[in-house]
Amino acid sequence: MMRKSWIESANTAETDFPLINLPYGVFSRAGGAPRCGVAIGDYVADLAALEHAGLLETAVFDAPALNGFMALGKAVWECNRERLTALFAAEGDPALRDDAALSAAVLVPQAEVVMHLPFAVAGYTDFYAGRHHAENVGTMFRGPENALPPNWLSIPIGYNGRASTVVISGTPIRRPLGQIKPPGIELPVFSPTRRLDIELEMGAVLGQGSAMGTPLTVAEADDLIFGYVLLNDWSARDIQAWEYQPLGPFQAKVFATSISPWVVTKAALARFRVSTPERTRPLLPYLREPGPMLYNIELEVRMRAEGQRRDTVISRTNYREMYYSAAQQVAHHAIGGCRMQVGDLLGSGTISGPEKENRGSLLELSWGGKEPLTLEGGVKRCFIEDGDTLTLAGWAQGDGYRIGFGTCEGKIVPAPALRPEWLDD
Amino acid sequence: MMRKSWIESANTAETDFPLINLPYGVFSRAGGAPRCGVAIGDYVADLAALEHAGLLETAVFDAPALNGFMALGKAVWECNRERLTALFAAEGDPALRDDAALSAAVLVPQAEVVMHLPFAVAGYTDFYAGRHHAENVGTMFRGPENALPPNWLSIPIGYNGRASTVVISGTPIRRPLGQIKPPGIELPVFSPTRRLDIELEMGAVLGQGSAMGTPLTVAEADDLIFGYVLLNDWSARDIQAWEYQPLGPFQAKVFATSISPWVVTKAALARFRVSTPERTRPLLPYLREPGPMLYNIELEVRMRAEGQRRDTVISRTNYREMYYSAAQQVAHHAIGGCRMQVGDLLGSGTISGPEKENRGSLLELSWGGKEPLTLEGGVKRCFIEDGDTLTLAGWAQGDGYRIGFGTCEGKIVPAPALRPEWLDD
Repeated sequence: MMRKSWIESANTAETDFPLINLPYGVFSRAGGAPRCGVAIGDYVADLAALEHAGLLETAVFDAPALNGFMALGKAVWECNRERLTALFAAEGDPALRDDAALSAAVLVPQAEVVMHLPFAVAGYTDFYAGRHHAENVGTMFRGPENALPPNWLSIPIGYNGRASTVVISGTPIRRPLGQIKPPGIELPVFSPTRRLDIELEMGAVLGQGSAMGTPLTVAEADDLIFGYVLLNDWSARDIQAWEYQPLGPFQAKVFATSISPWVVTKAALARFRVSTPERTRPLLPYLREPGPMLYNIELEVRMRAEGQRRDTVISRTNYREMYYSAAQQVAHHAIGGCRMQVGDLLGSGTISGPEKENRGSLLELSWGGKEPLTLEGGVKRCFIEDGDTLTLAGWAQGDGYRIGFGTCEGKIVPAPALRPEWLDD
Repeated sequence: MMRKSWIESANTAETDFPLINLPYGVFSRAGGAPRCGVAIGDYVADLAALEHAGLLETAVFDAPALNGFMALGKAVWECNRERLTALFAAEGDPALRDDAALSAAVLVPQAEVVMHLPFAVAGYTDFYAGRHHAENVGTMFRGPENALPPNWLSIPIGYNGRASTVVISGTPIRRPLGQIKPPGIELPVFSPTRRLDIELEMGAVLGQGSAMGTPLTVAEADDLIFGYVLLNDWSARDIQAWEYQPLGPFQAKVFATSISPWVVTKAALARFRVSTPERTRPLLPYLREPGPMLYNIELEVRMRAEGQRRDTVISRTNYREMYYSAAQQVAHHAIGGCRMQVGDLLGSGTISGPEKENRGSLLELSWGGKEPLTLEGGVKRCFIEDGDTLTLAGWAQGDGYRIGFGTCEGKIVPAPALRPEWLDD
């Protein structure tokens, strides 16, 4: 059973934010500046207010990003978690609980706040570490015999993403313009993407960095990770198909990446650690994990068309399906001497499971646009239409409680109007 | 003829830094903090000191990066250039010239300063816009019939690079470890790269940004560019060959990118504008240039082995060889709505010319390692050995003067020692 809080809404089986979660984020109240908080039940606890009241030992939370706190390192992360646990526990330190004025100032209903990007994204790297996803996409593009690229079982394949367009859940996503080359036409056309898609991913957030020229072991790499978020790597499949050879995806991805507002700490997830799947091919020693470094996190994708009242769950899967853990990805990232930074974000790669209903992208769910999904009310979808809202949700399921991530959502708005300069003479 | 300065070393035909150049950088003196300066003849002019003396209208140069100045925008860039020109011109404003104490404080011999990264690199994107390079590499990998990828004549192909390892000229470059798969072996091995290479590029520096979801025309894109630097996109060809399919180069490139210390402004280069080459295939309208947006900049690559007293020039080429300008690359970068940022760095792609001696990488110069180069004293090289120093240089050649970039150099130090965790059981 779970330790109880004096904040009643933190004690239910359904809340994403029980006492043992305490995820970090950045919020603001009407007219206020963004500052750091933790989620507890239905509230955000204002960490800057707790600092000002002298109840925390840090001086980093009156800031619009968690980077300053993360940079303090693991000992401070642990100390702060213990302190917050004591302040919110039913049988803990009464300093907050018994001070009605202070607790009213510190505990803000989540319904009254606006959430912001929780950290300044220093660098964003995206991976391709889900085997079912790689096999599904490979089968569609190259046939089942050549589904996995030859390097896939040896390398946690990754590529640099674009940090400037990582946005907080709720930010509207504008349909991108770009070059697409429909089949049977010789030259590309300029058009809004016709195959807008999601990728269901987890994001690992680095709270510590490394020096340039200094590789890391997998254990050292895991130590850099502060926590995890949900991540939607929005993708324009038709732009991607035309551009991605030979140097990888660019305009197909750089227009937006959404993340959930709460960074769930590695400490909160510790009891949900699981091993990566058995290796089909032995890994080189620099990638071998000294222990379980993946997590058992339930995930789902929901979709809703404009005007619909309810979401349709279109996919259910689990983070444990990944072939490589984030720790392995960080170790690979740094092996050539790349400098890792506080605030680096690493996308796991699309998380698909073994069955059709476990697929983490519409490309896979509609099998390249050939098998439409049916949403609530009979609406059909192969890819995303303007006005659609896509929502990711995730939680680690305990016995009578969950360590939740909240949601990561985005609604699609139409592409920009075409300007005269973009039209043919 | 060129307008003269009262600083005599700025008036020679050989200096990179005449009065009409005035490139911006960040420097420090022994024991001092980094601050902004401009190069003039053999000196760095301390811009923070000029601000403190009330001779400039800004308050941004007592900072370790140019980002604050760049963010002020084009009108301020132009105003500051006019002001500096007046202060350094022989027949100009005497306020600095006639104040011996002030001019001694402001003008620091370049030999006495350490140069730093001139701006905080917000994002780094690398392109592949040199046709001769793309054809050379394509011929080596796919044969002459399929040298250019099908999209190459329509898209200025680019991919996200790693900003955290962009370093200033002079920074030693550690040979990266990684996975390589030599021909004829089934599984990869863990090893220092055996095919370490350079890529001779120009870097465009963005001094203004754009809003997410807002594409730019080519003219608007050109307006974001503050200036240009020399850029060496260090590359590990064997790591690249094994990793780059399907998502592009990653560990082959993220270990280091070097840039020259001085940002040569677009204003200084204006008279050297040239048109991109004639199009083989018409571009989509969003990529068409309203005027000449490429530059006539002479480039060379020099190489020196450990212990050698002199560089050998191994390549001579020109920036005008590029098929796409930086303005076109920025327009393409933003067309899907990517947010551009003050401090973004865009690599041009490797600049090779039509002849063998114009090639901008050792991969091309040694034709995949088959035709070794001969350096001073008979030393042979296909790729870079430990202790080798590679230097890029560049200048726009005027009539009796040059707008120079200085140099961009890096010496290779050996790979890290192997740790027990990386060795096979």
